[in-house]
Amino acid sequence: MGEDLKVFRTWSSSFALRAVWALKLKGIEYETVYEDLSNKSPLLLQYNPVYKKVPVLLHNGKPLCESLVILEYIDETWKQNPLLPEDPLERARARFWAKFGDDKVFQSIVYGIFLKQGKEQEEAIPLAIENLKHLEKELRGKKFFGGEKIGLLDLALGWLAHHNGVFEEILGFKLIDQQKFPLLVQWIQEFANAPVIQENWPPRDKLVAKFEAIRKSSLAK
Amino acid sequence: MGEDLKVFRTWSSSFALRAVWALKLKGIEYETVYEDLSNKSPLLLQYNPVYKKVPVLLHNGKPLCESLVILEYIDETWKQNPLLPEDPLERARARFWAKFGDDKVFQSIVYGIFLKQGKEQEEAIPLAIENLKHLEKELRGKKFFGGEKIGLLDLALGWLAHHNGVFEEILGFKLIDQQKFPLLVQWIQEFANAPVIQENWPPRDKLVAKFEAIRKSSLAK
Repeated sequence: MGEDLKVFRTWSSSFALRAVWALKLKGIEYETVYEDLSNKSPLLLQYNPVYKKVPVLLHNGKPLCESLVILEYIDETWKQNPLLPEDPLERARARFWAKFGDDKVFQSIVYGIFLKQGKEQEEAIPLAIENLKHLEKELRGKKFFGGEKIGLLDLALGWLAHHNGVFEEILGFKLIDQQKFPLLVQWIQEFANAPVIQENWPPRDKLVAKFEAIRKSSLAK
Repeated sequence: MGEDLKVFRTWSSSFALRAVWALKLKGIEYETVYEDLSNKSPLLLQYNPVYKKVPVLLHNGKPLCESLVILEYIDETWKQNPLLPEDPLERARARFWAKFGDDKVFQSIVYGIFLKQGKEQEEAIPLAIENLKHLEKELRGKKFFGGEKIGLLDLALGWLAHHNGVFEEILGFKLIDQQKFPLLVQWIQEFANAPVIQENWPPRDKLVAKFEAIRKSSLAK
């Protein structure tokens, strides 16, 4: 191998899974370091002193942090199965929507809806739907956000595929329904069923238990 | 020219200035469209329906939004005077700190300090200093964040050089002082005095008036 490559992750973080999925898609071997975020390792604190979070990618002793930055690094370092297309305009689109996914979609769904209840939750739904409609539009005429193949934006939005069923089960309602979001519903299926993604997907029952606990603790505050 | 290139900006937005500076550094000609954010043009709303903000770069009829995404697009489209180095690790560093600049430094200085007063402002200072110390460290051994030349991270942090003196004048104290931040103080000088930056820097007195008004209106809320 000649290369020293480690991914610091947890079993469930979908931000860390971005890096895992990317390396698997490219067929790159690496070592996994599982972190317990309630008791972070000295190495994690050393490698990510700014955010103290997973994922960290450690490549030949050099740490890289921030999952979208890591995805670009992986794509630039190992050229096979590109995550970003070649056309600068298409690259810009993928980066734009990846940032939108983190800044707006994640915020509006996780903090606006999943960790809220009652009136506050209800009032947050229109914004989340508006955000999701942008993504629905971006999928027009495509199987994946990356086109025929999974690309950077698919990995960046992997949390949505990953959390959607879990959130539905816990909340008892569907945010992403077939009628409003036919393309997103199909994408969630296609993405989750892609072999590399499926093989690296945490167990559903463990996710439900974990997110139920997070929600309870957040609502109790 | 053969190319149709427009920058939608305001006279003062340092996010829009990122795109302006990048194009000037690369010697690319473009048309300027000045927007009045209190009365946004139909074109701005059409080209940036998600955020409705400047900058928008319109290249051969295709709109690009989000200033850091625009910088990468400019760098990939016109290769002269690269904004990002070639080494993937160095590219990742620049991207990491550019995001940190927007997510943490900008937030902690503009919203934490500049738009606050009294105790709230005082309590925000340690975090802003901690964030600035990361940037100070990143400048060690370098003239610019990009090394010998202005790079993407310099442009991304241009707002800091750009706003610092204005904030000092309005607030009556120095956050970035020579003793704590000798490298940042020097960088602010070097950056502001670089010809392309200097030639595209809004008038100081207009900036002071504008930011004084913003601060007053924010404190009155």
